[in-house]
Formats: sequence, structure tokens, C-alpha cells
Amino acid sequence: MSNTFGKLFRVTVYGESHGASVGCVIDGCPSGLKIKKEDIQKELDRRKPGQSAVTTERKEEDKVKILSGIFEDKTLGTPISLLIWNKDADSSKYLKIIETPRPGHGDFVWRKKFGHADWRGGGRSSARETAARVAAGAVAKKLLKNSGIEIIAYSISIGNVEVDEIDRQKLMNKIANININKNFDMSDWKSTIESNPVRCISKRKAKLMENEILDAKNNGDSVGGVIEVVAAGIPAGLGEPIFAKLSSDIAAALMSIPAVKGIEIGAGFELAKMRGSESNDEFIIAEGIVKTKTNNCGGILGGISNGMPIIARIAVKPTASIARKQKTVNIKTMKAAEIEIEGRHDPCIVPRAVPVVEAMIAIVLADHGIISGLIRRQG
Amino acid sequence: MSNTFGKLFRVTVYGESHGASVGCVIDGCPSGLKIKKEDIQKELDRRKPGQSAVTTERKEEDKVKILSGIFEDKTLGTPISLLIWNKDADSSKYLKIIETPRPGHGDFVWRKKFGHADWRGGGRSSARETAARVAAGAVAKKLLKNSGIEIIAYSISIGNVEVDEIDRQKLMNKIANININKNFDMSDWKSTIESNPVRCISKRKAKLMENEILDAKNNGDSVGGVIEVVAAGIPAGLGEPIFAKLSSDIAAALMSIPAVKGIEIGAGFELAKMRGSESNDEFIIAEGIVKTKTNNCGGILGGISNGMPIIARIAVKPTASIARKQKTVNIKTMKAAEIEIEGRHDPCIVPRAVPVVEAMIAIVLADHGIISGLIRRQG
Amino acid sequence: MSNTFGKLFRVTVYGESHGASVGCVIDGCPSGLKIKKEDIQKELDRRKPGQSAVTTERKEEDKVKILSGIFEDKTLGTPISLLIWNKDADSSKYLKIIETPRPGHGDFVWRKKFGHADWRGGGRSSARETAARVAAGAVAKKLLKNSGIEIIAYSISIGNVEVDEIDRQKLMNKIANININKNFDMSDWKSTIESNPVRCISKRKAKLMENEILDAKNNGDSVGGVIEVVAAGIPAGLGEPIFAKLSSDIAAALMSIPAVKGIEIGAGFELAKMRGSESNDEFIIAEGIVKTKTNNCGGILGGISNGMPIIARIAVKPTASIARKQKTVNIKTMKAAEIEIEGRHDPCIVPRAVPVVEAMIAIVLADHGIISGLIRRQG
Amino acid sequence: MSNTFGKLFRVTVYGESHGASVGCVIDGCPSGLKIKKEDIQKELDRRKPGQSAVTTERKEEDKVKILSGIFEDKTLGTPISLLIWNKDADSSKYLKIIETPRPGHGDFVWRKKFGHADWRGGGRSSARETAARVAAGAVAKKLLKNSGIEIIAYSISIGNVEVDEIDRQKLMNKIANININKNFDMSDWKSTIESNPVRCISKRKAKLMENEILDAKNNGDSVGGVIEVVAAGIPAGLGEPIFAKLSSDIAAALMSIPAVKGIEIGAGFELAKMRGSESNDEFIIAEGIVKTKTNNCGGILGGISNGMPIIARIAVKPTASIARKQKTVNIKTMKAAEIEIEGRHDPCIVPRAVPVVEAMIAIVLADHGIISGLIRRQG
Repeated sequence: MSNTFGKLFRVTVYGESHGASVGCVIDGCPSGLKIKKEDIQKELDRRKPGQSAVTTERKEEDKVKILSGIFEDKTLGTPISLLIWNKDADSSKYLKIIETPRPGHGDFVWRKKFGHADWRGGGRSSARETAARVAAGAVAKKLLKNSGIEIIAYSISIGNVEVDEIDRQKLMNKIANININKNFDMSDWKSTIESNPVRCISKRKAKLMENEILDAKNNGDSVGGVIEVVAAGIPAGLGEPIFAKLSSDIAAALMSIPAVKGIEIGAGFELAKMRGSESNDEFIIAEGIVKTKTNNCGGILGGISNGMPIIARIAVKPTASIARKQKTVNIKTMKAAEIEIEGRHDPCIVPRAVPVVEAMIAIVLADHGIISGLIRRQG
Repeated sequence: MSNTFGKLFRVTVYGESHGASVGCVIDGCPSGLKIKKEDIQKELDRRKPGQSAVTTERKEEDKVKILSGIFEDKTLGTPISLLIWNKDADSSKYLKIIETPRPGHGDFVWRKKFGHADWRGGGRSSARETAARVAAGAVAKKLLKNSGIEIIAYSISIGNVEVDEIDRQKLMNKIANININKNFDMSDWKSTIESNPVRCISKRKAKLMENEILDAKNNGDSVGGVIEVVAAGIPAGLGEPIFAKLSSDIAAALMSIPAVKGIEIGAGFELAKMRGSESNDEFIIAEGIVKTKTNNCGGILGGISNGMPIIARIAVKPTASIARKQKTVNIKTMKAAEIEIEGRHDPCIVPRAVPVVEAMIAIVLADHGIISGLIRRQG
Repeated sequence: MSNTFGKLFRVTVYGESHGASVGCVIDGCPSGLKIKKEDIQKELDRRKPGQSAVTTERKEEDKVKILSGIFEDKTLGTPISLLIWNKDADSSKYLKIIETPRPGHGDFVWRKKFGHADWRGGGRSSARETAARVAAGAVAKKLLKNSGIEIIAYSISIGNVEVDEIDRQKLMNKIANININKNFDMSDWKSTIESNPVRCISKRKAKLMENEILDAKNNGDSVGGVIEVVAAGIPAGLGEPIFAKLSSDIAAALMSIPAVKGIEIGAGFELAKMRGSESNDEFIIAEGIVKTKTNNCGGILGGISNGMPIIARIAVKPTASIARKQKTVNIKTMKAAEIEIEGRHDPCIVPRAVPVVEAMIAIVLADHGIISGLIRRQG
Repeated sequence: MSNTFGKLFRVTVYGESHGASVGCVIDGCPSGLKIKKEDIQKELDRRKPGQSAVTTERKEEDKVKILSGIFEDKTLGTPISLLIWNKDADSSKYLKIIETPRPGHGDFVWRKKFGHADWRGGGRSSARETAARVAAGAVAKKLLKNSGIEIIAYSISIGNVEVDEIDRQKLMNKIANININKNFDMSDWKSTIESNPVRCISKRKAKLMENEILDAKNNGDSVGGVIEVVAAGIPAGLGEPIFAKLSSDIAAALMSIPAVKGIEIGAGFELAKMRGSESNDEFIIAEGIVKTKTNNCGGILGGISNGMPIIARIAVKPTASIARKQKTVNIKTMKAAEIEIEGRHDPCIVPRAVPVVEAMIAIVLADHGIISGLIRRQG
């Protein structure tokens, strides 16, 4: 149960960080979807380590191999098995974590729960597992694109550096005015994001964010941030009421990403301070369809998409694994201890988490697209 | 899928607001658990409408009837079916919402999705469905209590009135020092919460919060708030890595509650601004077991409980249904329109949402308790 | 998990034999389906006890009450909760089974597994639970009828009395020639079956079967039989390859009916004796579509419907609960013992199992109809 | 859904016959289970093609590669990913099936359902997919062995050649007297079965069966058979009442194996002819525990294991793909047509299906072992 996500578009992932490979099996993708290996590789390249000075220096090519489910560049409707071999695995420095777990990391609970654990590179508790999610997400994205749905994520804060309020406001207006079920073009946004190493939506703040990360890195420390994700082109009606709300499944998906500790939909925590007369998004008719004037609800009402763009945000905590000496305990001797992991570490997971966020949102939307009948299954 | 929550402790709910009844079927509760009708009724009484001036004036007795699964005041291991008849149902005023959906409410998307809808009292999209969750949660709570786990939720802000920072800090310290797997007593907290109509943890601010709600009510408006929930007595090891993280399932559970738009675990969004050296919770040995000095992670590391109390918070938006005239559209004529629902409305859902939050957390923990083997199943 | 069947058309059942009620919750039925209480009651009347001399004499009215999910005689797309109160419950004679389990019955394993058990009327291990299945099946049947699918089950043997081979052959030919996706009429068959108390398809043998049951009854004994079920009007393409084969889900559904110990699809065990050149059903073109000349495969190839009628058979063992003295053990003293249950017993479950078989097949087909997109969901 | 089996011990399979590979991911296997690659390879060797004159001549090494989930020859509790590369793939002769589907084969329905299909070697509808099941089953077997459970399957008929009644009876007696939860040794049986190419339990009939297959083969034809499977050492209490009966899950598992068209538990269809006084298995005390004198119920009462060995049988139809010219239709021209597939074919799937049957039973029992708590999970 733990390693499968989705109800009709089901993604099963596997793999230890320094084991043979990580990979995924996607079950439930309809047949006939055109997809090439490059569509998947492109997304993996956005997540892979070693892209810039602000990410980990581990080198992984992360080349995807398609084992099944795609024939003549079209999906078969059978399980799509995607494999990524592990390459750059220097496990030696991880020997320490067997007895002295890293503060803030899953090491301790993992060992407590499973007893036997693959300590090499953190084993399955390493964020390397997200490569498999990104591969699966690439298939979901392609499926959604066919139905006119586009997804984009980007950072809006790193540590204490935030996108300016005025730029935030402009962005929200731009999002609210994306034509629904019509042609809209997010290529501008995408190139903005890919043009800076922190994947920030605001060029103005990108450099400061970069510096914030480098400062943390130089201090053997790490830093967190906030990622926002927008999904446009979604018709009203996705999501099931009560438990399988679109918002509920999005929350589960995003909270399953390593280091995520907070989630907001639409105006999120700001809504708690409002009056209903302020927070309620007024319905209007625009271009012949029902829209809302504002989008405080983030495109979801009563758990169901209302036809406006979906907006969510996540809080990403600083990477637990830092290069500084930290106090911990030795779980064998049950005495106080210290731990220090030398060498390269990932000073900020945010830039590489951006494609992971897109992947998880894509998987949720592909799933609900199929559940609701927007995306057809075979019969 | 939509109306069932949980993997091994599975709750299926049903019922329209002004239909015959709401109810639930719990599948997977182990046999032999001692439980009386009063254990369930007690929780329903905390959620039922008409408790005080700050809640809706609708009158419902919400008396539970046990249809199956319990015999001689002990569970059988068979499905527990619990039914609550609907009583106080004046549907007339809801006729309007058929054509002119309420802003901020699920009316529009519901009709868009399902075509045929029970408009009476909002039908299934009414928060009345949460009575069934609370009934199920009462069984989960009882099961957890047997394993030494206690859950408490309370409001920490209503509109712009927040619990003082100093009181928050004291509370967090108190929580961090709850002895794990030992006797701890939350009865003080519980009586504090039940002694004020807003279910606030701070007596100092409860009256102000009450006034905030009454002010909204008198203006035909509504107001939101923040609820915090603490689960104590949880051993390390609950939760599955990757997708069925404890945090992920908690996020799904809480986001499925009507009007919830934000979720935080532990320090939540504050973590995004921290450095790893600040946010990492240092491991210590206390009373012979591994604990952490701080609890920024909210009791969950890598998706798995670490033995510290679990802490989560949710943002509750103001009730969508207000007594003021609002702009909307007529979905039949596709023209601008206005809507005004006369009479009693719920000015703030927060006080009655508190037992719902406890119920959902209890359901998640009961489920993971069984999944992990902490709570035994039959064999 | 145990009490829910189906993936997208999900039926959850509950209820002890002499508890307050039995019932079901159907989740996933599309909205807008026209259905009246009588559609459900009609099926329950076919299953209810006391219909004739060949069934149990227990008297139950088995009146269904609709608690949710249906409004203005149309489904809402929300959970449909159906309840049947238990009435005629004389539990006294069942006291014996607490210590001396009935041979062939679930008493022993139930107590072994759950410890605490409701011994009254067999509790949840009584076949009374199948009333809830029939109620759910009535909804599934209605949904299928809308898509041109009809289901009929009937007995073909009771004890050693079997339908003549020549009549079987005629029937099979008739089935093979049912027009697919066109109008076909099964009302003749239905009236034949309902015109005799054993629900046999052959009037010629019905009386002999009746006598076989009465002979068993008069001897305080019981007798088994074979039920065949046909589903017509099914397009090619239902069923998923590999594990969720249509045949696999049918097998699970039928084997879940109390007392079923064998299942055949199409020619079943006869196929094991054939050569491929005999067993392979030749493809032909008839009325513009692909059909097969014979139907050895029972309408399912590689787990997927091929457009021919689906044919399955089940072996029903004699009712375990008989009125004769039987040897058993006392599970408290762990000594040899005897048990004799006085009074009315069900000498043959076959006639009343016929509507249960139809219900389970209907549930499987409704589920796969939705999975494959033949039956549309909301979106 | 289609490609995953199991609830807590979950097996997801993938792979096309002539694609890159077939494989499986096992999610839910507890950590700490000792297992070597050879444990898996050994089972694959029993299934692989080219073992003898009575199986297909296709040559596949079927070497398993462990991608994840096992570290230092012990399971991690993380997903176990097992891969088998495809090697001997001469696809050319399959071009024909694109337009002229093979009678009795899934070709037609597959194309009808999915549109785009991998025709090479039958793609996913080839029985080659069962290699992945056998690999997963090897892990399940190992897990069960740890809990004292052993599984053995064998052929009891091929075409019209059946094991003598007297030998059947002896075997049944032997099975009934296997000591429960004590040491029992099935190595004799296993060596009998592996000593003849048809995997028959009766040496007396093995040669005749072999001849039956060779006769079919020489005529370009194929032949079916019956496989029986026994699981010993199972305590009372496995299986859930109502829908997830042990018998129901076994039925689903066995019916999902290609070419299976009938299933019996215990005395199966013979029970339909009996009286209750004959069929009911009398309880007795033996060696301090409750057993039954006979085992007509095949070790399952009311869907729950009763502590006696589980016995099931399946009818396997003759391989659809034969080397003779057959009448079919051309689905493009919608005209009558003929098809003839030259070269090697599998004259009888029975011998190679034996390990597949064991694998599927092992997967079901491992799943229910975990569900019931017999096999512990992490917590």
C-alpha cells in the first residue's frame, strides 16, 4: 500500500538509493497515448543531481529505460515499467548512520520500524526515490496535456527571501485569467523558471535566493522554502466529494514528498482570518462559462474542481542531512553522541523538488481525470 | 472510493442532510473492544448543532443507533453500522440554490458533476455528513485509548483573535514533555476546552473569540479559524514510508473535512524559513528511550512516527453559507443573479469542527495502528 | 476489506442474523439512474425465507428502507444506503453452538478467529447476510439493464436430479443465439424459473427436484445443487487482463456466496479433457459483428468479454445446518460431543441462492461496466 | 488494478512477451526474511520454457535480477523489484494475428479493448507474464515456510488420462493426516512430481499423460488437464468472512491464471450431489486440537481456514495457440479467414502451470497470513 499511489492511474515505486536501481510501474494509463523516451528523460533531467551549484554534487545520469507498456511510441494500456539504474554510489560515509541517526532524518524511525535497513545512501529513505515519481509524472503530464491540462510549479521563497507581494499579486491575476479549456501558453513561465537555478517565478528575487542557498551551503547548513503549483485548463467536476476530494488527494500527494511539512490550497491559512463575505469567490459569467471573480478557493469547492486554475503551496523544510557536526544519540549504546557527515550535501532541496511537485500533482489529476471520465479508459 | 476512508480500519459514510439519515459502516475494527452506545453519543453531542449561541441554531438530537457489529457491549470484528436519523429538516429555503449556487459553496460544482442533486439542506454537500465521521471516530478513539493513545483538538485562532504566543509556547512545552507510553492525563485540557463555547485551549482568549463569532453572526457573516490537534502516547514506528506516510494520510484526512484549506505538521510553514541546524530536532535519551529535544517535526520523521506527540494544525475558512445578499449567477439563464438565504446560519464552523478533527485523526491512527501491528487483528 | 466488494461500484454489507438489521451501502453508482423501492423489494422477495415448502420456514418480511442516495426516484451519485430490519428472531435454540460447533458450518472457525461472536442465529456467519447482497444487486441490475445487459440464474441440478442433456443443449443453443446489443427478451425464461419453487430452467425436472428437497427435509437432512447463470447483451471488452480478469472477479464473487464450493466458466471442467482443436471457439461474422460459433469459453477470452453471453455455474453444497443429531466436539471441554438443532431448517439453499447469484454477477458486471467506460461516471 | 494482486502482500506485474522484460514489484513483504536469488531462480527454472519434449521449445534462460528490497540476503520491508529479461524473441510469425485473431486466444478481445496492441509473441496476453508471478510466488513461499506452511501442486489429469481413483483416495488420506503445525515433510511428493515431465503425482500414470501430450503435439494440437494444489500447515483462522473469504481469494487467484476455466475447493462439484449428513465434516479431537474426520470442505469453512490442509483443483483448457490451420475472421475486412501459426507451440500448458498455481496460492496465503496477523508486519 505504501508504495502505490492512485486509484485508477496507479503508480508503484521501488528502489534503494545505492541499490541496483530505482523505478516505477504505472498501471492504468489508457492505451494509444503518444509518448517518447525523451518526454520522460526531459523531466528526469530537471530533477537529477548535479545541475548547479545550489544542488547536491552527486552525479547521476538518471537515464530512463522503458521495460514495458510502450510500443511503437504509444502506450499499450498495459503497465508501463520505467527503470533508472543507480550509478554514483559512494556508500562509505553512511556507515555512521547505522548507530547514530541523523537529526531530522528518517534514519532513526526507519531502523526502529524495519529493523534491517539498507544504510547505504539512506537506502529507501533517501530522496532519490523521487526520481521514480518524476518518471511516472512525465507520463501523467503527457496524458493531461492531451486533455488540455498544464501544470507548473516554482519556488516563491527560499529561507527568508520571498517573492515581492506585488509580483505575487500580478501572478495571481495572470493565473485567474488563464482561459479555461482554450489555448493558453505557459511557455513564458516555464522559461523563466528554468532560466534560474532556484526555479523561482520572479527573476527579481532569483539571485537573492541563490545567494541564500550558497550561504547555507558554505556554512555546512541547509535551507527550506515554499513551492507553489498551478494547474490550468481543468474543467469543473474533477474530484470526489467527502473523502476523495481533489484537495484531499492533492494534500496526500504533496505531503508524501520528502521534507514537506505544510500545504495550502488557494488562500490557505489567510482564509482562517477572513469573513465569509470576503473569502467567498463570487460567481461570474465569462466567455460563456461560469467562473469566479477571485480564486481564494484555489480552484476547488467542496472538494471538486470549479473550472478555475488549481493553486497549491507547500512548505519544504531544510534538508535534514547537513555537513555540520550535530548532537544525536547512539541507539546501540543509548548514550549521547555526535554525528558529522563529510562532503557534498544538498543545501536546498527546493529547486529539485519543483519537478517532483509537478509530477505528484500530475499523477493526482490524471487519476481524477480517469475517475471522472474526462480521460477515457478502454472498454 | 469517495465515501470510504482507511485501509484496514475502513470507514464508509453515507447520507444527505435532509434525507432519512446519515450514518457509517466501520469495517476492520478488531473484535473484543469494549464500547457502549454512550461512548459514541458523547462525541456526537459535542458536534451536534444548537449547542451554543456561536453555532447554528438548527436543532438535531443526533441520537446514534447501533445496527450491527457490537454485541454485549463488545465489538464482534464484523462491520459496525451506526445510524443517525435526520430530524429538523426545513428544506424550503434551499430551493434557491438549485439555480443560483451559493458563492464559496459546493452547490455549483456538485450540480455540474452529478446533474441530479438533492438540494434540500445542501444534500450530501452539507457538513451534516461529518456526524457520521464523528460516530466512527468515537470507535477509533476507544480503540486507541486501549493502546495508550489520546487525541485532543482545540481552536487556537478565530478570525483575527489568536492565542497569545507565550501561552502557545507553554502549551508546546507541556506537549513535548508528555511521557510516552506512560500514564499521562489530558483531562485538564479537555475540561478547559469544553468549558468555553469556542473550544479554545486558552481561557484568556476564549471570550474574545466568542465575541468575534457573535460579531460576524450579527452581521449575517461568518468567520474562520485555526484548529490544532495533538495525539499523545504514540510509539515510534507508525506510518509507512513513501506514499502512505503518517503525515500524508493525516493531510488527506484533515483536508477532507469541509472548509479546510491549509494543513501544517509540527512547525509547518515556519520550517520553510529555517536553516537545517535550527529545524533538525536533536535526539536525546530521556527515561530510557529516544526522544527529541524540540518537536519541529510534529512527531513525524520521514513519514513515520518518532515517539513524540503528533502535532498538526488546519486552516478553516469561514462558512460559505452566510445570511447576507451575495452576487452569484443563475446557472439556468446564465445571467448574473443574487442570492440571500434567510434565517439561521452557522457563523463559525470551528467549535463544532473540533470533534470532527479528533475523529479523523483517530481514524488515521487506528488504521496505522492496525497496519503496523500495534493493534492486533484476528487470525 | 472483508465486507466490501467491487472497485468502482463498491458494495459494503453489514449485519448479524438476529441483530438489529442487515444492510448495504453502495458507493459509486452513477447519478441519474431511475430506480424505485419496488425494484429492490422485488428481488428481496425472491430471496426471503418462507416462500415455499422447499425453503426455511423462518418468516421475514425483508422490507427494504432507502436511507440515502436516491432522491425523487433517481440516484444521486452519492452512497445508496439500504436497510432491512430483522424481525423473526428466536435465538434460543442457537445457545448450543457456542460450545459445540455445527459440522460443516462456520461456527467453529468464526469463534476461533474472532473470540467474541454473536451466536444468535449464527450472527454474521448466517446466510441472512445475503439479503444485503440482493438489495445491492437490484441496483446493479437496474444499471446494467440501462446498458442492455440482462442476467438470469436458475438451478440445473438438485442432489442427483439433473436437467436432461437434450434440454441443456437446446438451452445452450438458445443462449448462443441471443442477439448481442439488440433487443432480446428473457421474460419467458424468467417466468419458467419463477413458476416452480426450485427455480429450475426445466419444467420437466422441477417437480423431481422439489421431491428431492422434500425427501431430504423429511429426513432432517439437506441437499445441494448446481446453479447456472447467464449474462446477455455484454459487449466485447469488459474485464481487465491479468489479475482483474472478468472471469477472476466472477469467480471471487460467486465463491463468496455461502456454501459455494465449485465454479465453472463456459464448458468448465469438460475443457480439461478436450483438444485445442475442439475447445477453441471459431470466430464468425454474424449480423455484422464478430461472434463465435460455439461458446466453450463462456463469453470470456483472456479474461475479457468477447461479446458472447457469459455463462457460469456453481456447485452449492448441502446446507450445513441440519435437523439430525451430529457428532462434533465441545470446544470448551475439548471432548467429543453431539449437537442437534431442533425445528425448522433450510433443506436446500439452492432456490433462494438463485437471486443471490444474479446479484453477485450483476455487481461484478456493473463494476466492470464502469471500469471499462461502458457505463459512464460523473466528471 | 488489473496488474496488482493482494491486499497487504501486494504483487504488481508487468511486461510484454517480446518486449524488454517481464517483472514484478512485491510491496508489503515484512523485513528480515532471509532469501537468496537462488530461492527465486529455482522456481523460475520449473516454469521456464524448453524443459522437456512436452513443453514449448522456446528457449528462455529466465534469469532473475533483484533490483530492490533485498539487502545482505534479507528483505528490507521495502518493495522487492524482480526483473527477467526477455531473450528468445522471434516475433515474425505473429504478424498474422494482427488481422486474423487466433480462436480461443485473447488476441481479438485485446485488440477490441485496447486498440493498440503489441502483437509480438502475443504481447501482454502471452502466458509469458506468469514468469513474474512465479518470481513473486517464490518470495511468498519463503515467507510461508517460515510460518510452517508448505504448498504443493501437481497434475491429476491430462486430456482423458486421469490418476486412478484408488491412488487419489490414498493421497487424500495422506493429506488429511498431515500433522498440523507440526513437522511434516513433503519432499517425497515433491521429488515424485519433479521426476516426471508432466508433474503428475502418480508415477503410474505419468508416462501415459506424457504420451497424451506428445500425441496432441504430433497432431499440431494441444490438450488440457486438471491440477490439484494442497497447502498444509495452515492454522485455523485465515480468511475473512463475507467477501474476502479465503476460498474467494483463492478462486480469484486461480482463475486469473491463463487458460483456467474451472475451480473446486475440497470435494467441489461432488458436494452438489450429496446430502448434508454426508458432506458435513465431523469435528474430532486429534493430538489435542480440533480437526475434522473428512475434508470435504477442503480446509475452508465459511471462508475461513479450519486448520485442515487446503485442497483446490483447477480445470486448464488446451492451449489456444495450436499449429493447425483454423477458421477465424479477418477483423479488418470483416470476412471469414484462416490462420495457421507455424513452428513450435506449447502442446500442454499443464506441466509449466504447476509452479504458477503454487505461486498464486502462496501469494494468497501470504496475504491472508499478514491480514490475520499470523505473519507479523513492522510497527
